[in-house]
Amino acid sequence: MERLERLALDALPERAFAFLSTGAGELTTLRDNVEGWGRVRLLPRALVDVSDPNCRTTFLGAEVDAPIGIAPMGYQKVAHAEGEVATAKAASESGVLMTVSTRTSMPIPAVAEAMKGRPWWFQVYVLKDRSITEKLVDRAVEAGCGALILTADTPLVATKPRLAETSAGEFDLHLAELEGTAAEGSGRRDYEGLEQDPALDWSAIAWLKDLSGLPVVVKGILRPDDARRCVDRGADGIFVSNHGGRQLDSAAATADALGAVVKAVDEAVEVYVDGGIRSGIDVLKGLALGARGVFVGRPVLWGLAHDGARGVEEVVHALQTEFLEAMALAGAPRPSDVTRDLVARV
Amino acid sequence: MERLERLALDALPERAFAFLSTGAGELTTLRDNVEGWGRVRLLPRALVDVSDPNCRTTFLGAEVDAPIGIAPMGYQKVAHAEGEVATAKAASESGVLMTVSTRTSMPIPAVAEAMKGRPWWFQVYVLKDRSITEKLVDRAVEAGCGALILTADTPLVATKPRLAETSAGEFDLHLAELEGTAAEGSGRRDYEGLEQDPALDWSAIAWLKDLSGLPVVVKGILRPDDARRCVDRGADGIFVSNHGGRQLDSAAATADALGAVVKAVDEAVEVYVDGGIRSGIDVLKGLALGARGVFVGRPVLWGLAHDGARGVEEVVHALQTEFLEAMALAGAPRPSDVTRDLVARV
Amino acid sequence: MERLERLALDALPERAFAFLSTGAGELTTLRDNVEGWGRVRLLPRALVDVSDPNCRTTFLGAEVDAPIGIAPMGYQKVAHAEGEVATAKAASESGVLMTVSTRTSMPIPAVAEAMKGRPWWFQVYVLKDRSITEKLVDRAVEAGCGALILTADTPLVATKPRLAETSAGEFDLHLAELEGTAAEGSGRRDYEGLEQDPALDWSAIAWLKDLSGLPVVVKGILRPDDARRCVDRGADGIFVSNHGGRQLDSAAATADALGAVVKAVDEAVEVYVDGGIRSGIDVLKGLALGARGVFVGRPVLWGLAHDGARGVEEVVHALQTEFLEAMALAGAPRPSDVTRDLVARV
Amino acid sequence: MERLERLALDALPERAFAFLSTGAGELTTLRDNVEGWGRVRLLPRALVDVSDPNCRTTFLGAEVDAPIGIAPMGYQKVAHAEGEVATAKAASESGVLMTVSTRTSMPIPAVAEAMKGRPWWFQVYVLKDRSITEKLVDRAVEAGCGALILTADTPLVATKPRLAETSAGEFDLHLAELEGTAAEGSGRRDYEGLEQDPALDWSAIAWLKDLSGLPVVVKGILRPDDARRCVDRGADGIFVSNHGGRQLDSAAATADALGAVVKAVDEAVEVYVDGGIRSGIDVLKGLALGARGVFVGRPVLWGLAHDGARGVEEVVHALQTEFLEAMALAGAPRPSDVTRDLVARV
Repeated sequence: MERLERLALDALPERAFAFLSTGAGELTTLRDNVEGWGRVRLLPRALVDVSDPNCRTTFLGAEVDAPIGIAPMGYQKVAHAEGEVATAKAASESGVLMTVSTRTSMPIPAVAEAMKGRPWWFQVYVLKDRSITEKLVDRAVEAGCGALILTADTPLVATKPRLAETSAGEFDLHLAELEGTAAEGSGRRDYEGLEQDPALDWSAIAWLKDLSGLPVVVKGILRPDDARRCVDRGADGIFVSNHGGRQLDSAAATADALGAVVKAVDEAVEVYVDGGIRSGIDVLKGLALGARGVFVGRPVLWGLAHDGARGVEEVVHALQTEFLEAMALAGAPRPSDVTRDLVARV
Repeated sequence: MERLERLALDALPERAFAFLSTGAGELTTLRDNVEGWGRVRLLPRALVDVSDPNCRTTFLGAEVDAPIGIAPMGYQKVAHAEGEVATAKAASESGVLMTVSTRTSMPIPAVAEAMKGRPWWFQVYVLKDRSITEKLVDRAVEAGCGALILTADTPLVATKPRLAETSAGEFDLHLAELEGTAAEGSGRRDYEGLEQDPALDWSAIAWLKDLSGLPVVVKGILRPDDARRCVDRGADGIFVSNHGGRQLDSAAATADALGAVVKAVDEAVEVYVDGGIRSGIDVLKGLALGARGVFVGRPVLWGLAHDGARGVEEVVHALQTEFLEAMALAGAPRPSDVTRDLVARV
Repeated sequence: MERLERLALDALPERAFAFLSTGAGELTTLRDNVEGWGRVRLLPRALVDVSDPNCRTTFLGAEVDAPIGIAPMGYQKVAHAEGEVATAKAASESGVLMTVSTRTSMPIPAVAEAMKGRPWWFQVYVLKDRSITEKLVDRAVEAGCGALILTADTPLVATKPRLAETSAGEFDLHLAELEGTAAEGSGRRDYEGLEQDPALDWSAIAWLKDLSGLPVVVKGILRPDDARRCVDRGADGIFVSNHGGRQLDSAAATADALGAVVKAVDEAVEVYVDGGIRSGIDVLKGLALGARGVFVGRPVLWGLAHDGARGVEEVVHALQTEFLEAMALAGAPRPSDVTRDLVARV
Repeated sequence: MERLERLALDALPERAFAFLSTGAGELTTLRDNVEGWGRVRLLPRALVDVSDPNCRTTFLGAEVDAPIGIAPMGYQKVAHAEGEVATAKAASESGVLMTVSTRTSMPIPAVAEAMKGRPWWFQVYVLKDRSITEKLVDRAVEAGCGALILTADTPLVATKPRLAETSAGEFDLHLAELEGTAAEGSGRRDYEGLEQDPALDWSAIAWLKDLSGLPVVVKGILRPDDARRCVDRGADGIFVSNHGGRQLDSAAATADALGAVVKAVDEAVEVYVDGGIRSGIDVLKGLALGARGVFVGRPVLWGLAHDGARGVEEVVHALQTEFLEAMALAGAPRPSDVTRDLVARV
């Protein structure tokens, strides 16, 4: 992945790379996410027949070729002209789950079409003007979205002081869906209704389920009590995330928070995780700590920046290949074999 | 804050900067204070309505706009010609609590006036010649001081070996109050009565309360048993502090000591903390660990050195803005929502 | 050992050195193996009569001059023209146990002859074409092998991304036994039957015992439950190993895994360990954590690359001398005195 | 102390400095000794009357001006022409306890005379030819020695690989006592009887007590069970030490081992400690962890190398001054006030 990060650094204007890569505050959580997986040690099983390894699984019942997903990320045109469409093509080719951000830079139907019938989910930022959110959810439903991801860690967008010297305006921050919808609603890009709704609360789960008829996965959960409350409020899945270190700096690394959330959920719903995933070994660790699926963010953008859909495919393929090998070496030839006892108490 | 530290380094003679910045011994505690906050991880709450965040609170009943205070620091003319008056102006503008040191380089009434009726506290070094201390306390009371801070960690001033090559005499170490009073008492700056009273003991709390009629906060507490004794002896508040690493080197970082003190106090009185605070995230951590308010030292001097009152305002404004954002992102829109469960056991 | 590593680096083409030295993935386990021993602290015994220190012991009943063995390593001609024969000469001279890899670059009988009647074991990779494995085991038995080491952590050979830019083909990867046998079986070096058998399972222990009539030591065990199962399945010994960091990256360091395995085995069989051993102090730590013997890998290759049999003797002699001194200084003049209480809980 | 170390580095030939400074093996314990004290954090007491601090104490009943001793070190002429006599002068002037090594480079009576009636102890290496040890003990008793230190961690002298390239022969390794006595016994410097007796065991305590009529302190204890056995065997004191990292490398740091030894001893005898002491804060930590006295090694040699007796006095004076200040700042004005609760559990 380091090689791809360097290639992306070469492919992009410095400011664009910084915009995609940065984190909140002093980058504590950004770094701790990666280091968190690095602190996990494995206890592989010996002498297990791994002649038929298979990493297929399901996410909320939908079949995927690997327990790997594309984490929701907006503004993908900053990385590559084809943006989310290229990423979707790669996800579809690779058989992994795609997610589309509210802040997508390509229209939802175009992204959906690139998925060629494979499952994808829509990530929802609930905005002050809820009519906009409703329209976007409608468009996602119409385009065949399989589930909604309710982002629960962004009542406001955190400042990024390390990005301060970088003027974000010099590259294209086009928002394909939001701007169109906002235009209808207000005609202005700076329409206040486009801001995150800071009043968002637990009622949002039921609201989104009613609105869409889709399962809702709550993303941005780090606490066992919140995980429990998601279950009680009818969520269909939980996504352990600290927004890739881009929201509350000093928030716990997801590798550190995952285990307690999984324990609290007690198999009531599926748990996903993202943040700091850089290899198939990390994917194995995520599953061993109880995740159903592991989502990848920045490496996808690096691949996208480097070589469009082909670059993303390269990233996903590398992760999947490493994960398959890691499963075999760990004596866990199916995702369901990747259990808590593989993690060493070191 | 690093930017401001560099600006202060540029603004001041090297020796003046060293005098303000240094710590005792090998600087172990000086560094550990900062690292201590860095070791704390947060578990933000999801889906809390944070549309009306508000960081106002009270310190001993006095209203402040944020749970942030200016830590007591003497010799502020070393940083800027207006010294403590500039700091007070900024505190007053920002609505945060000011403290005035026994070793103030500006007269107490001038500092008090700059506060424009907003609350400030007087930090008391009890000196060998108690009559001097009494006079200073009288002057503080007369000027409208709201509480006394009894410094309990300085029976003598620790040597600063890392400052040894620096001759302190080349910049102005004028002591507006002490020198005036000493003149009355002895006529000489080196009057022994001006030294810290090493015989100071627990009776000082009652003595200061009787003398002033003001609440007394005991500063320099790191031990649960001492905290308990403060309560038993009638203190109105406790200030967890290791004097910014300027007294006993190797003393525990305040981030490490705070929790046990808060537990021992069991809400009997308010607990404050200083040492190593560099961001609004640190302020949030201090409150999460049980502090009522978090006091800031060196960054205030950096702002003061860089741009006088305006520089201090910049520092306080940055901390307050970061703290407000951190509260919202942590799902804790009021200081009273910032509770122990926000801290991860990592 | 650092000196010898540098000498080997000088003696070998860069790629050959990299091929011998590298590990899997990000080299996490490769490094952690060495650091793992470094984290162990010792509590030496005082005032023990150590006038007659003696490090002789037995491995599965066979007498060895020190609790040190040569870890199984293939392709030793990459390090030196005499390959495994040179290593065997040195092992025989030093009185330590030799092991011969399935991937030996010298014929088994030649290596066996160099052992001059001293004990050696044959390391078994079970291949897809089991008839090849059977032939090799037969040859080993015929040549006087004392025990078989069943490699249990290699259902497939892990990729070595850090070695990717290195073309392995430029030095001799001759496999004296496998190629001969494969020629019989298939006539082609790329015969699929030569690959590791990924279907290998616990039945392999009984199969190898029946086939050879020899004791079987299972290598690549890191988990207490697997260790227990080895005992239940009739293994005669357990070899705690992560394949020198060359298989599952992020696997626990052997120094961290050893203690729990030893406890689970509860003296039912002998336990051996390898991975990261760089000094006689490490040998002492291995024994203190419960190993019967400690096997050395890369340092042997360094000695071999530097000076053939003489270089290997130098390495073994250094380890043995350091171990003898460490035993005396620890107040443990016999291997049986090197017990768990010598390890500090730090 | 860093300044003095640099001055010593300037004052001595590189090899002489290396000879005095080095440790065994990879210098793990040498470094860990210093870092061990660095890991200890303090919880100072507030508002204690420290107007009359006093660091006088007794070592085995003998009065000393500070709980500081000169650790036993041989070959002091390597550091300075006056060797142990200079060190003794400084110890006497400073009122701290001197120890004289079996490997002293100055005659015992000369060193004793320099002590001017102040207490000093003789460090005993029991040699193969016990008649030599007996003669040296007799000479020490005759010269007024107050106690014997039985070195229990040196059944043989550890090799120092990091010193290997340094030829020790180029500076004076004169042994004032051993060579004279050996001459009587054998006439040859390489007489085998001069070597450490590796058969030394617990009977040595009674033997030395009978021989000398003096109290015996056993030095080189790191284990609670050994400490207990010292008490049971009649030792009058225990000296927690790993020989300054010069014997078993990887032995636990004395700061880490001290607490458990003190607990096991349960006040039956006095406990001393050395290893890694570099400041008066470290002295305070040693006492807080239960030591009666803290002995200083290398810094004394640095002072000696730099400026003879004056240099040693400077070192001792600095430690004593720092310790007095640390006592006051910790709210512990007497050595007996420096108790376990001053140490933070960080």
